[in-house]
Amino acid sequence: MKTLLKKTYRQILNWGDPNYQEVLSDDVKKTIQELVGIPVLEVNLPTFLPGEKEVVVDRKIQLPPKYVKEFTEIVGAENIKTSDFDRAKHAAGKFYSELLELRQEKVTTPPDLVISPNDESQVELIIQKCNEWKIAICPQGLRSSVTKGIGLPDGGIALDLTKHLNQIIHLDEESLTVTAQAGINGPALEKFLNQKGYTCGHFPQSFEFSTLGGWIAAKGAGQCSTGYGKIEDIVLSLKAFTPIGIFENESYPKAAQGWDVMPLFIGAEGTLGVITQATIKIRKFEPNNRRNACIIFKDFESAQGSMQACIQGQFGLPHLFRISDHEETEVAFRMKGFEGSFSDKALQAIGYKPNSRSLMFISVEGDKDYTSLVIDKIKSTSKKFGGRSIGSRPTKKWLSQRFHSAYMREPLMDLGLMTDTIETSVMWKDLKKLWKNVRTYIKSRPNTVCMCHISHVYENGANLYFTFISPTDKSAPLEDYQQFHEGLVNTILSNNGSLSHHHGIGRALSPWLKEKIGENSYQLMQGIKSIIDPNGIMNPGSVINESNK
Amino acid sequence: MKTLLKKTYRQILNWGDPNYQEVLSDDVKKTIQELVGIPVLEVNLPTFLPGEKEVVVDRKIQLPPKYVKEFTEIVGAENIKTSDFDRAKHAAGKFYSELLELRQEKVTTPPDLVISPNDESQVELIIQKCNEWKIAICPQGLRSSVTKGIGLPDGGIALDLTKHLNQIIHLDEESLTVTAQAGINGPALEKFLNQKGYTCGHFPQSFEFSTLGGWIAAKGAGQCSTGYGKIEDIVLSLKAFTPIGIFENESYPKAAQGWDVMPLFIGAEGTLGVITQATIKIRKFEPNNRRNACIIFKDFESAQGSMQACIQGQFGLPHLFRISDHEETEVAFRMKGFEGSFSDKALQAIGYKPNSRSLMFISVEGDKDYTSLVIDKIKSTSKKFGGRSIGSRPTKKWLSQRFHSAYMREPLMDLGLMTDTIETSVMWKDLKKLWKNVRTYIKSRPNTVCMCHISHVYENGANLYFTFISPTDKSAPLEDYQQFHEGLVNTILSNNGSLSHHHGIGRALSPWLKEKIGENSYQLMQGIKSIIDPNGIMNPGSVINESNK
Repeated sequence: MKTLLKKTYRQILNWGDPNYQEVLSDDVKKTIQELVGIPVLEVNLPTFLPGEKEVVVDRKIQLPPKYVKEFTEIVGAENIKTSDFDRAKHAAGKFYSELLELRQEKVTTPPDLVISPNDESQVELIIQKCNEWKIAICPQGLRSSVTKGIGLPDGGIALDLTKHLNQIIHLDEESLTVTAQAGINGPALEKFLNQKGYTCGHFPQSFEFSTLGGWIAAKGAGQCSTGYGKIEDIVLSLKAFTPIGIFENESYPKAAQGWDVMPLFIGAEGTLGVITQATIKIRKFEPNNRRNACIIFKDFESAQGSMQACIQGQFGLPHLFRISDHEETEVAFRMKGFEGSFSDKALQAIGYKPNSRSLMFISVEGDKDYTSLVIDKIKSTSKKFGGRSIGSRPTKKWLSQRFHSAYMREPLMDLGLMTDTIETSVMWKDLKKLWKNVRTYIKSRPNTVCMCHISHVYENGANLYFTFISPTDKSAPLEDYQQFHEGLVNTILSNNGSLSHHHGIGRALSPWLKEKIGENSYQLMQGIKSIIDPNGIMNPGSVINESNK
Repeated sequence: MKTLLKKTYRQILNWGDPNYQEVLSDDVKKTIQELVGIPVLEVNLPTFLPGEKEVVVDRKIQLPPKYVKEFTEIVGAENIKTSDFDRAKHAAGKFYSELLELRQEKVTTPPDLVISPNDESQVELIIQKCNEWKIAICPQGLRSSVTKGIGLPDGGIALDLTKHLNQIIHLDEESLTVTAQAGINGPALEKFLNQKGYTCGHFPQSFEFSTLGGWIAAKGAGQCSTGYGKIEDIVLSLKAFTPIGIFENESYPKAAQGWDVMPLFIGAEGTLGVITQATIKIRKFEPNNRRNACIIFKDFESAQGSMQACIQGQFGLPHLFRISDHEETEVAFRMKGFEGSFSDKALQAIGYKPNSRSLMFISVEGDKDYTSLVIDKIKSTSKKFGGRSIGSRPTKKWLSQRFHSAYMREPLMDLGLMTDTIETSVMWKDLKKLWKNVRTYIKSRPNTVCMCHISHVYENGANLYFTFISPTDKSAPLEDYQQFHEGLVNTILSNNGSLSHHHGIGRALSPWLKEKIGENSYQLMQGIKSIIDPNGIMNPGSVINESNK
């Protein structure tokens, strides 16, 4: 006998496998209890806003039936979803307020239909119809946006590219490129490439639940971006369908053909068109040549100094290059049960003290002599900054668990903890000040954990990635978050940080964009949008949107 | 007693110091005589179109006197030039047909005035006035464009940035950047940086007579771009004055702030606005760590194979990385008097034969262990392709004479030789075919020297740079060139080459742009131009121009 599973909000808001629930270990619980002051070890707290009810979408489908009929004729009934659960699933990404709303059993930005086109010609037809009928389209990959990039405030079509437009098109082993459809997910693309002896080198934190098209649309960065580059450095060409037609360019290693309009689609977050395919760089996959190291510093400033000296040292680039500030290091040590161990005591004895020490993770790929040189150089540079190599095991472990942390968000939110991240990029000259002032802002909330790492490193600056865990105001969790988030963004901007290094703008950061880039650049962005999308149907309300939705 | 020097066409068309004349050595003359079939050793040929007359510009200044008066009030009389010679000097760049026209004593695209603003506020005022009065502006650095990027077919203002807007604004030794005004020339910028222990790493062939603003406007590349990147990889931020106002961005190592409009000014060739300043990356200048090598291969295919294997080898990047095809190698050997020497005979004896062998030049900068590793890897990779290291001297010599070849153009043209270059970029998969077919096209002209090198190298492809020397049809030299050039561009495009890797489009390649990038991209370019420059005053006729002027 078949059991029909209840389709809940919880299944939508969970990261990864909707049925998987992460259970916090005792070490994690103990750390939370100590740092955030919430009793989780002895007391069995009730789950905060569990979202276990069956999904009901209040806003009914508002598209006229004749439109639905036409779309059905284009893609076939099997490629259109209309259930409340499916509409809710395609209504939002993973921004904190979106997760809160799902826990509160609210679906505020549902599409009318979820359509999965079979091929590019259907994408073209759907856009033409939507443009004619002024129906909004939100192009979607695996919806891991953390900046409210997904959603249709006034309804429309969620255009799902993952069901059919997910194929490898061409592997060019001479020029080292792969051409694939935008809906292919990270693991499928990487698996194909690894089998052929290559890697795409792009591993965002959302890797398992992200797509090629999403990487490009959000201008993402992978964990190994210091060596392999951000997605804008990796994409060679792309194809995008827009209300005014198809945009497609040829691949060149570089060119000078006037002002290049194709990069406009990188970082456009679906507001200019639907990216259907792209050609990206690939590299030889030589895991046996990989060299890993982990170095501990006495404080974050020393780790930063070493990182800066390395990246400006002109001796080649590591691929993974990451430092955690003292609090992130402390939390990691506690959560992994390292604190108080024999090794910990040994480190403390030689001056690497809790609440001050800072970890650096390094992984270098490529030719084996090159990987040795870069690792050795980083180690010797680090020594000058008081760094001490603690072997390659912590980094190997980090690599093996690299996509796990996302799974901890739900159990932490279950405890009523505001659990979120924010990231920015900044020039080296402003980095220390930004870190200090943003940290001070976050720590101004009582009982708040504020962890920071630098994970994308450049000669001229780096990103800063903050994670915070803080008891929420359970009576008004959304308002509590919004107020805190607004101050946080303002603090970043007033300390010369960018609005985002690799998450994009979406609707979460759009209210700050005009001020950030200036009136003229903003108007030019609007002008470009008006040319490509004259009826404003492409992911409306995202990126270019001065009101805070 | 002062002698008033006659101001001739010749002084304008000469490369470098207008009074300097390169004299061809006997080895060069002998090579020309043998390869092009023109008797230059024994016979004293009359100079072909010497351009020694005093400059007279037929088109008189057409701006109403009240406008001239207003401009004079803005910048002062000492910053406005109106003589025929000055107008002719600022009327064109160094495209072959422009040089021919000067030799024919024609000035077809003169400005009415040459204005040198004192500061940015004057740039702003001048653009405002020109926009109001619909007067064209051609922003100018040192006018080394080889794609007809300079010129005012219907008159207007040549806006010279080199006289006053040539200062260093700020050196940031923490973030490794320098901010400078656009009119600073290459040597001045590099000298400043070297004194502080840095390098800009950007050395285009025109280095001595090029400016920061020109590098950016033309999307240029330097001889060390394989290591340091093209200018679009080096620029972090810029400031541009346009008819609708000022565009300026902040420097970030990378960011994801929606679709980024500021890169549109890179490669816009003055058609969107006037770049007045930019912040670019700098690197530590460590000439003692530099490692040079020169390797000879039995043929160009082997050199290509080795170059591709090196750049895809993931062992770091050389900075200068350059191979010459068999004909360029042959001509260099002959012109330098190497052919027939003892060393030549030794090389021939072990299989490196004339008319087949191919040279590779390498220079690596940075950390000393890194430079050793990269040089060693290139040498060992080259061995697999039959390459033989012939020491570092040829590369050192090449570096010391790196900017000389431009001076040979005039004496060659004096002989009635069509002497020009064209460059493109192409993916590795198409590179061999493009080289072969373009070469075949060029060699279809009787008695024509066709030399090719690859000098900007990427994991996914490279540029190809062709130089040709060919007896011109002296009865119709311009028509002869135009017909040949058109077929040449068509051949490049039909072999999957880009319109340009680093020279840009100008008016010389603009007729091909729409077909190359497609109708929609072209219309979007036009749309962007209309937003920023609604009256079409910025360098009109360049880049976006379907007719061949």
